[in-house]
Amino acid sequence: MTGRDLEGGFDAGGGITKLRVLNEIRRREAVARVDISTATGLSRGTVTAVTADLISEGLVIELEASEEAAAPSQRGRPRVLLALNPDALRVVGVKVAPDTIAVSITNFVGDVVARHDTSVQVKLREPEEVARLVQEGVDHALATAGLTLAQTAGIGIGVPGFIDHATGLCRWSPVFGEPDIPFGQMMAKRLGRPVLLDNDANLVALAEQWFGPRRAESDFLVVTVEHGVGMGLVLDHRLYRGALRVASEFGHTKIQQGGALCRCGQRGCIEAYVAEYALVREAGAFMPACDISDPQATRLALDALAALAEARDPVALEIYRRAGTILGIGLANLINILNPPLIVLSGRAMRTSHLFWDAIMAALKANAVGGERDLPRIEIHPWGDDVWARGAAALVLDRLYQLPQNGS
Amino acid sequence: MTGRDLEGGFDAGGGITKLRVLNEIRRREAVARVDISTATGLSRGTVTAVTADLISEGLVIELEASEEAAAPSQRGRPRVLLALNPDALRVVGVKVAPDTIAVSITNFVGDVVARHDTSVQVKLREPEEVARLVQEGVDHALATAGLTLAQTAGIGIGVPGFIDHATGLCRWSPVFGEPDIPFGQMMAKRLGRPVLLDNDANLVALAEQWFGPRRAESDFLVVTVEHGVGMGLVLDHRLYRGALRVASEFGHTKIQQGGALCRCGQRGCIEAYVAEYALVREAGAFMPACDISDPQATRLALDALAALAEARDPVALEIYRRAGTILGIGLANLINILNPPLIVLSGRAMRTSHLFWDAIMAALKANAVGGERDLPRIEIHPWGDDVWARGAAALVLDRLYQLPQNGS
Repeated sequence: MTGRDLEGGFDAGGGITKLRVLNEIRRREAVARVDISTATGLSRGTVTAVTADLISEGLVIELEASEEAAAPSQRGRPRVLLALNPDALRVVGVKVAPDTIAVSITNFVGDVVARHDTSVQVKLREPEEVARLVQEGVDHALATAGLTLAQTAGIGIGVPGFIDHATGLCRWSPVFGEPDIPFGQMMAKRLGRPVLLDNDANLVALAEQWFGPRRAESDFLVVTVEHGVGMGLVLDHRLYRGALRVASEFGHTKIQQGGALCRCGQRGCIEAYVAEYALVREAGAFMPACDISDPQATRLALDALAALAEARDPVALEIYRRAGTILGIGLANLINILNPPLIVLSGRAMRTSHLFWDAIMAALKANAVGGERDLPRIEIHPWGDDVWARGAAALVLDRLYQLPQNGS
Repeated sequence: MTGRDLEGGFDAGGGITKLRVLNEIRRREAVARVDISTATGLSRGTVTAVTADLISEGLVIELEASEEAAAPSQRGRPRVLLALNPDALRVVGVKVAPDTIAVSITNFVGDVVARHDTSVQVKLREPEEVARLVQEGVDHALATAGLTLAQTAGIGIGVPGFIDHATGLCRWSPVFGEPDIPFGQMMAKRLGRPVLLDNDANLVALAEQWFGPRRAESDFLVVTVEHGVGMGLVLDHRLYRGALRVASEFGHTKIQQGGALCRCGQRGCIEAYVAEYALVREAGAFMPACDISDPQATRLALDALAALAEARDPVALEIYRRAGTILGIGLANLINILNPPLIVLSGRAMRTSHLFWDAIMAALKANAVGGERDLPRIEIHPWGDDVWARGAAALVLDRLYQLPQNGS
C-alpha cells in the first residue's frame, strides 16, 4: 500500500495546496468553499478545483446543507458544507498503561470503530512480552473491524515517561523496569509496518488539537492527571517536542525542596503530590494500606477515597485540597514561564475535578503573575477512554499531513 | 528619514532575499559568498547580485582576506569574506534599572559608540519625570556621538517586570510604583519617533541572539540574575514572547509553598531566594541591616557579602550555596518543561558565579529528568554593561529585519 499511509503519505497530488485545504476543513469540521477561500487566501477557483479532487479521492464529502446554513446573499440557494469523510482511512492506536494495553481502530475523524483491551501488569513482563501482547491486541482489534493491517494508515503508540518520538526509544517509563527500551523498533519489526511512538500526554494534546473543541486554537497547553501528571504543549498549531525531543515533563517539575518522593526517584515533583498513586499513598494514614505498585489496587483505593470525599469526609477532602493546591502552583509556574491563552485539564482524575477545582483556582490566583486578572482560560475537557485512542490516531494523521507530497 | 529606521525598514529593495543574505552574514560574522549560497540555497549568481547591492548600499563590507581564508580549490586566489558594515546605522538603547537610567548609542554590530548613565532612584520619581530623565540621557548620548535622533534607526528600551512589548505598556515593574504605565507611548510622544519597549531579560536574550557567541543556535534560553531573576526564550531563531505577550517570568515561578516573600507580593518565587536583594536580605542575620529598597545600599552590602564569601566565611558561603541550589532547582524545572539544548546564564550576579556554580550543578543533577546524562549545555557568558545596550540595539534591528520591504 503506497497511498494514505506512513509509507506513502496522502499521495494526493496537488501537494501543499491540497493539504492546506484539507487542514482548513478539518479545523472547521464543516465549512463552505467560500469560507475556505477566505481563510486560506486561495482563489475560489483553486478551492473549487482542489475540493473536487479531494471529493473524488474520497477524503472529503459534501454534507446536505441545512436551512440555517443557507446564506441570504445566495438568493436562497443553500450553501453546501464540506467535511472530512470519516471512512477515508483507518488508524491503529495503542496505549500502554501500567495495568492495560488498550488498542483501538479509529477513523479519519477520530471515532473509535473497534477496540480491544488487555488487563496486564505491564511492569512485571519483559519488554518483548509486552510487545507480543500489543501485537495480539492489534490483531484482535483488526479482526473486530474486519480489516488487515495493510488496510490501515499506520500505527500510533502512546507510552508514559520520557519518550524519544524521533527514534521510538523509551528512555524512561514507569511501565518498563529498565531504561532505554527501543519499543518503537520492536513493534515495527513485529508488525512489519512503520510505528510512531510518543509520550502519552503528547497524544492527549494531539487529540485535543485534531479532534477537540479547541482544535482551531493556535496555542494551548494540555495537562493530564492520571497514573502520572503529563503535559503537551501546542505552539503555533504544532506540538512542541523540545529541542532534545523529550520535552514537557511537567509532572517532574519541583515545587518543594526535599519534598515528597516521586516514582522517578527524585523529591518534590508535582506528580508525587497529585498523581493517583500520590493520593492513595497519603490516604494510607487513615485507610487500609494499599500496594501502589499494583495499579488495580491503587484504582480501588482511589475509588474509596473519592467516595469518602464525596461524603464530605474532612480528611479525604483535605487530601484532594492539597493536591489541587500543588497542581495550581505548578500550573501557575507554567503560566509564568509560557503565558498560554488556554490550559486544558484532562486525564482520568478530572472525573473528580470538582474535588480539586477550588484549590486549583485559589493557588493559581495566589501564584500566577498578574494574579486573577491575567489568568488564561482553564478548561476541563470531558474525559473518556477514547481520548487516548484519538491521540494515537492524531499522531499518525499528523505525520501523514507532513510527509512530502507528490506535486506541489 | 524613511530608510533604515523603524518607520521605513531597511528600504533595501530586493526584500526577503536580501534580508536572508543579510541575516546569514550577521550570524556568521564573516562569510564567503559561496558559503552564503550553500547555507541559503540561493544560486551563486543571486548571492553575487544581492551582495553587490548590499555593499553599494553600505550595509555590508568586504574584509581583507587572510592567508588562512584562502581555499585551495581556488588556486591560491584568497577568498573575500563579507561582514556587516559596523557604521551602516546607529541605534539608541535605554535601560531603566532601579538605580540607573543607562543610555547607549550602538552601531550595526552592537558596539557601543557613546553612552550616558544617570544615577537615580527611579521608583521615587513620577513616571513622567522618569521619561524626562530618559529623554535627557538620550540627548546627552546623542551629543557625545555627534548625532541627531533622526540619524538613528530607532530607540529600544528595556524595563524589568511584566512588559507588553506590542503596546509598550509596563503592566507591572519594580521600577514604577504603580501598574499599567504606558511608558512606550510616553517616550514616543516625547521623542517624536517610534519606540520599542521590552522586558530587560528579553533584551539580554536578543543581545545573545544577535551578537553573542551562540548567535547561530536556533534554540536556547537565557536566565539573568541581577536586581531580579529574568528569562528570555529563543525558539527557532525567534524570541518567544508568549501568546499573551508577557511570557517568561521565570523569576516568579515558585519552588517553595509558602516560601520567602518576593517583591511581587507572592511567596516562594525563585527571585526571593536568588536575586541580589534576596542575598542581602538573608545576610541581615549577621551583617549590618541594609535598606533593600535602596539599590545603592543593596549593592554595597552585596559587595561586602561577596568579599566575606571570597574569604571563605562559612555563613556567607552558605548564603550563596542556597541561592545556587534554588536557582538549580528552577533551571531543572525549565529543562523538564522545555528541554532546551543550551542555557546561558547572564546578569551582574554571574560575576561571582564561582560562588554559586557547584550548588547549581548539584541541584540540576538531582532535579532534572534524566539527571546528569541529559543535561543541556550550561554556559556563563561574560557580563558587562554593554550587554543591555546591545539588547536594546537588537530590539530595534530585530524589528527592522521584520518590517515589510520594498520589492520581494
